[in-house]
Amino acid sequence: MDSYRPPNNEHIDNHMVKMEVNLDDISGEWLGYVMDVLFDAGANDVFYTPIYMKKNRPGVLLQLLCRKEAIGQMKDILLKETTTLGIRYYPLTVHRMERDFVQVETKWGSITVKQGISNGEVFQSSPEYEECRKIAEKHKVPLKKVYEEVWKHVGK
Amino acid sequence: MDSYRPPNNEHIDNHMVKMEVNLDDISGEWLGYVMDVLFDAGANDVFYTPIYMKKNRPGVLLQLLCRKEAIGQMKDILLKETTTLGIRYYPLTVHRMERDFVQVETKWGSITVKQGISNGEVFQSSPEYEECRKIAEKHKVPLKKVYEEVWKHVGK
Amino acid sequence: MDSYRPPNNEHIDNHMVKMEVNLDDISGEWLGYVMDVLFDAGANDVFYTPIYMKKNRPGVLLQLLCRKEAIGQMKDILLKETTTLGIRYYPLTVHRMERDFVQVETKWGSITVKQGISNGEVFQSSPEYEECRKIAEKHKVPLKKVYEEVWKHVGK
Amino acid sequence: MDSYRPPNNEHIDNHMVKMEVNLDDISGEWLGYVMDVLFDAGANDVFYTPIYMKKNRPGVLLQLLCRKEAIGQMKDILLKETTTLGIRYYPLTVHRMERDFVQVETKWGSITVKQGISNGEVFQSSPEYEECRKIAEKHKVPLKKVYEEVWKHVGK
Amino acid sequence: MDSYRPPNNEHIDNHMVKMEVNLDDISGEWLGYVMDVLFDAGANDVFYTPIYMKKNRPGVLLQLLCRKEAIGQMKDILLKETTTLGIRYYPLTVHRMERDFVQVETKWGSITVKQGISNGEVFQSSPEYEECRKIAEKHKVPLKKVYEEVWKHVGK
Amino acid sequence: MDSYRPPNNEHIDNHMVKMEVNLDDISGEWLGYVMDVLFDAGANDVFYTPIYMKKNRPGVLLQLLCRKEAIGQMKDILLKETTTLGIRYYPLTVHRMERDFVQVETKWGSITVKQGISNGEVFQSSPEYEECRKIAEKHKVPLKKVYEEVWKHVGK
Repeated sequence: MDSYRPPNNEHIDNHMVKMEVNLDDISGEWLGYVMDVLFDAGANDVFYTPIYMKKNRPGVLLQLLCRKEAIGQMKDILLKETTTLGIRYYPLTVHRMERDFVQVETKWGSITVKQGISNGEVFQSSPEYEECRKIAEKHKVPLKKVYEEVWKHVGK
Repeated sequence: MDSYRPPNNEHIDNHMVKMEVNLDDISGEWLGYVMDVLFDAGANDVFYTPIYMKKNRPGVLLQLLCRKEAIGQMKDILLKETTTLGIRYYPLTVHRMERDFVQVETKWGSITVKQGISNGEVFQSSPEYEECRKIAEKHKVPLKKVYEEVWKHVGK
Repeated sequence: MDSYRPPNNEHIDNHMVKMEVNLDDISGEWLGYVMDVLFDAGANDVFYTPIYMKKNRPGVLLQLLCRKEAIGQMKDILLKETTTLGIRYYPLTVHRMERDFVQVETKWGSITVKQGISNGEVFQSSPEYEECRKIAEKHKVPLKKVYEEVWKHVGK
Repeated sequence: MDSYRPPNNEHIDNHMVKMEVNLDDISGEWLGYVMDVLFDAGANDVFYTPIYMKKNRPGVLLQLLCRKEAIGQMKDILLKETTTLGIRYYPLTVHRMERDFVQVETKWGSITVKQGISNGEVFQSSPEYEECRKIAEKHKVPLKKVYEEVWKHVGK
Repeated sequence: MDSYRPPNNEHIDNHMVKMEVNLDDISGEWLGYVMDVLFDAGANDVFYTPIYMKKNRPGVLLQLLCRKEAIGQMKDILLKETTTLGIRYYPLTVHRMERDFVQVETKWGSITVKQGISNGEVFQSSPEYEECRKIAEKHKVPLKKVYEEVWKHVGK
Repeated sequence: MDSYRPPNNEHIDNHMVKMEVNLDDISGEWLGYVMDVLFDAGANDVFYTPIYMKKNRPGVLLQLLCRKEAIGQMKDILLKETTTLGIRYYPLTVHRMERDFVQVETKWGSITVKQGISNGEVFQSSPEYEECRKIAEKHKVPLKKVYEEVWKHVGK
């Protein structure tokens, strides 16, 4: 599709696919496990949706985003680790905005904030979860308080 | 609870419980099956809710409504037919309004409509699904059309 | 795709896309707000699906349908109003059946019913919600009763 | 239950119930409507859960929280405005923490923040949504930016 | 897409589409019915997802997989049997692995197990649900026990 | 409730409550975090349900099961780590069946299987997930294969 001209520094990726399987006969324990396996194998994202399937079966729609080159690898994992006998996928276009990482000083030390940039402006500031979590556990403060501290100091 | 005085012909049932199990390691095929087993055994209602459980497991919350006297029977089915190692339940109060059955004449014949009565007035008219379905299949008309025909003829 | 020849008056639209973002760090308050912003900006439809994301995060899949020409505008809204750092989309084909608007006379006045036409036949009759709602509020009758009144008078 | 001694200024309410109905034959349009009717009638909260019901029906579990004295009123609304022929409910205990309202000065004016107080400490600060929304619309800024501005100025 | 070379005996199908409709004004009873109609008409799969739609309406996203040649037929069913005034669809690629059927001998007789084959190896063994169910009902044993018996005897 | 007399070795616990909060303004990141905090603090179970809340907000219903004595502790965590300004809870009865642990010998070593016992009979055999997972990772075999191996060797 070429009816959309992107501004600078935005990356438009036309090599991505979304892969899907419907599962009505798998244990939730295995689904918790296979999400990690897929991420470790390089899937860009993996997520589950609750679905209603035939014969009153509560099922799960497993979706993942990956590069076209990874289709075979992702398929192998799904065949090995789930109960599916096949897969389906379709291409999609992904726009990834430029990102920047800044440090915010808090009473517990420095925390990284990931910023999304569009047309030279910051449109989103996301504190890095893992750093916030470690501080919350180390200093025995609520995770909520760590985020609140970051928000107080993020300039825009 | 006695802060609520019911009008006539409404049945207030204080002998009901809601029973629940959380399931994170069961096949959807078995859940489709056990819903029928529970209904056949006399459960007043059985329904599933998608839930997020620990370790990234998509699970199912199975809930059923039954009479207190049926607790043991329902528990036996859940232990036999699901993966649970226990059950939980709590009492609740159920109000069942008086119901009436009337016949509505349509071009395909007579269809039963169940009516809910409160204080002598009809507050709900529900065409009987199974009768509508049989007519739809027999006369090869959309189920939607059968319901529309019933609605045209239901007086209130 | 050209293996399907449409009957008359059906509009086949090949200029539509579905846009999606997965959100695991946004407030439900903002999601309630952005749905209105997207509709006001001309999105054909906007809807949310509950999804299971990594690290035990209950997330939301935001999906919208829009014309290809609107991709940039929708993207700007998503970047400004949600926590996403990118978007994804894929093209789809939309069939819109011809619609007709008829007036149905009820005891409370006239109510518009939108009808879907296919091959010269009415396949769906949908009472206009906003008109039914206003009547329900004005005459202090249940919305259900207003719809039932409309169904009694819709000819097919 | 008296195995829990509350700290000061917390309100423990033992006069609340949760009321529920399962609905497998109702239009989503009516459910959107009845949520408002229930809130306008004084329900403390109203929310919907997607559920799997018998015969492959995707249903909705409607739940509401209300005072015992309101049981009859809520029941009347549910009978009038939904397709149910009965209701169920059970008592629960509600703890409401003391709340405080403070003003936060932003570049667009003053915004109210609701604070939850426990044991003399602020444990939660919630910007008032409606005020934030009005500012976002009036000044044509993203709602997200309004919240970020508030978080910068909230002291704890 | 030709960046993926399949191993032998896997069937890659490029003639499939996914068709979708969003429904916010339909009865769950009709949705239970239309799932069967679509399957009987040859849909490869049909499933429902709970979605949040505008005006606080809990809706259902109906999705089906079918061959391109079936688009017209599926569309007719959706227009006739649901409340939609249009449909949407997009093409996708489906990989179906080779399948094999083996017999497993159990104390109650022979049960068919469907096996998925990839690169000459069995990657999945699925007991045939209907056969297991019939045995469970005939011999009055839990469905779970029938599956467990099959698993004990399936060689890999 | 005493209309149900339990068989031997089943533990009936009348000191449990289910605690709930509805959350429409919290990040999924914090919900992933608080699930762990609650489990670490001794909650018997913690799970999330997607719910539709007012103003088109996709929300989360957080539910946990805990002992009455833990009400205060759980409440403190919810106030500190979520956005709620209060909690609600109700008592329930929990039946926990007797459990047994047996060792199953597989080609990769010994794996623990937890068995549920009722009336002297094994009604459920659940392979210990963490042990299966470690074997899968160590021997680079699909988790599915580990479970299949266990099922082959579990006697009943």
